[in-house]
Amino acid sequence: MQKPLILVCNDDGIFASGIKALTQVASKFGDVIVVAPDKPQSGMGMSITINKPLRFRKVDFDHAQEAYATDGTPVDGVKLAMHKILSRTPDLVLSGINHGANSSVNVMYSGTMSAAIEGAMENIPSIGFSLLDHSIDANFNPSKTFISKIIEHTLTRKLAPHTCLNVNIPALPEEAIKGIKVCRQANGNWTEELEERFDPMGSKYYWLTGKYESTDKTPDTDIWALENGFVSVVPIQYDLTHHPSITNFEHWPFS
Amino acid sequence: MQKPLILVCNDDGIFASGIKALTQVASKFGDVIVVAPDKPQSGMGMSITINKPLRFRKVDFDHAQEAYATDGTPVDGVKLAMHKILSRTPDLVLSGINHGANSSVNVMYSGTMSAAIEGAMENIPSIGFSLLDHSIDANFNPSKTFISKIIEHTLTRKLAPHTCLNVNIPALPEEAIKGIKVCRQANGNWTEELEERFDPMGSKYYWLTGKYESTDKTPDTDIWALENGFVSVVPIQYDLTHHPSITNFEHWPFS
Repeated sequence: MQKPLILVCNDDGIFASGIKALTQVASKFGDVIVVAPDKPQSGMGMSITINKPLRFRKVDFDHAQEAYATDGTPVDGVKLAMHKILSRTPDLVLSGINHGANSSVNVMYSGTMSAAIEGAMENIPSIGFSLLDHSIDANFNPSKTFISKIIEHTLTRKLAPHTCLNVNIPALPEEAIKGIKVCRQANGNWTEELEERFDPMGSKYYWLTGKYESTDKTPDTDIWALENGFVSVVPIQYDLTHHPSITNFEHWPFS
Repeated sequence: MQKPLILVCNDDGIFASGIKALTQVASKFGDVIVVAPDKPQSGMGMSITINKPLRFRKVDFDHAQEAYATDGTPVDGVKLAMHKILSRTPDLVLSGINHGANSSVNVMYSGTMSAAIEGAMENIPSIGFSLLDHSIDANFNPSKTFISKIIEHTLTRKLAPHTCLNVNIPALPEEAIKGIKVCRQANGNWTEELEERFDPMGSKYYWLTGKYESTDKTPDTDIWALENGFVSVVPIQYDLTHHPSITNFEHWPFS
């Protein structure tokens, strides 16, 4: 039997330590091809490149059959991989391990999760992994056991068509993590602070910064799971329709 | 009574003719502040700028109280407007009129719709408008009647909390448009063609192109509405949870 073909991508760039850890775990399950941005692409969402052309080049990468650095966004990378790099349709798309959380509404801004969503659009079982630690020397080792379990079960049990998983892992020692919890995306929002500064010419500029706040912390949410020491798994789809509103609109005169 | 404060934004850039048409319509309903990218930002999705600072500058703009060009993405622009430019919370966020369709899954890649979704995250009634005509000299006049109706009803009837509308308008003469249809997002996908070329140094590069294909054309979808001469209105939310899968996962050993 042919080994599974696994596409590994991310948004922190091909030189980030998170994608090295993920590739190492993935290599236990099949042949791994890495296709990742040549520079950090955090917060790129589902961005695609349409006003300039794209390139990719082969690079060395431990535990991978082949690896390519692209000059596009995370979603561009999945499209390049699917249509120009891989010799056949992959059995699995893995994205991450992201340096920092992608829980709650952050899934909408996340390049890591957007790459997984692009995989789901192509109807390939896809998983995005994020560790709740932004630091450059984050310890990805405790994550590996949980990532292995989730990959194994995804390969054997499959996911619903056109869905992917958003997996977030608390920054805790392995023995302190209480388990894996399947949950829903918490609602929440960013309290933005656009930090005002002046350049040497006296002109204003702004750094986008802020604090994420969730008021939605019932035990069925990813935020609750993470705050209580669980790995959170949110099954993700990309139908944005607010179905209850369709019925409400029947009272609008124009429908 | 205070006039409504309306924020107008887009992804085609502040010099596109679509945003001029939208601002003209919006000005009938309140005080309009335009905040839009200083260059085209199509396909930027929910992308935010975190690795470099942002700037904005005042520009002249017909039918607007004030207008600002930003050097960020469409979503950056909404954040700048909300937290640094507007003197109070707007009553309405309008995005567009986009040059080209944002129906079906294209809502996920669209900068126009992402700006509206950012408005919804801030719990402001928000609407993204798109005309099914990419050309630089697209005729936005037939759209104006329908846009007026939809703005009027949104201001009086309100939307469900944290939702926005995705409005697509067929490129037809006004009298050929059959009406407005509230519908769901059709499923579909892009058949990518990454067009391969060689630069003068002999290196390969790729243009991301392709064709959108929908196999989901029942009369309750936006694709059906548009193909049958209706303006499509899809109510949009941003909870990506695939709720039916949560139950399925109860059979996974780790949950």
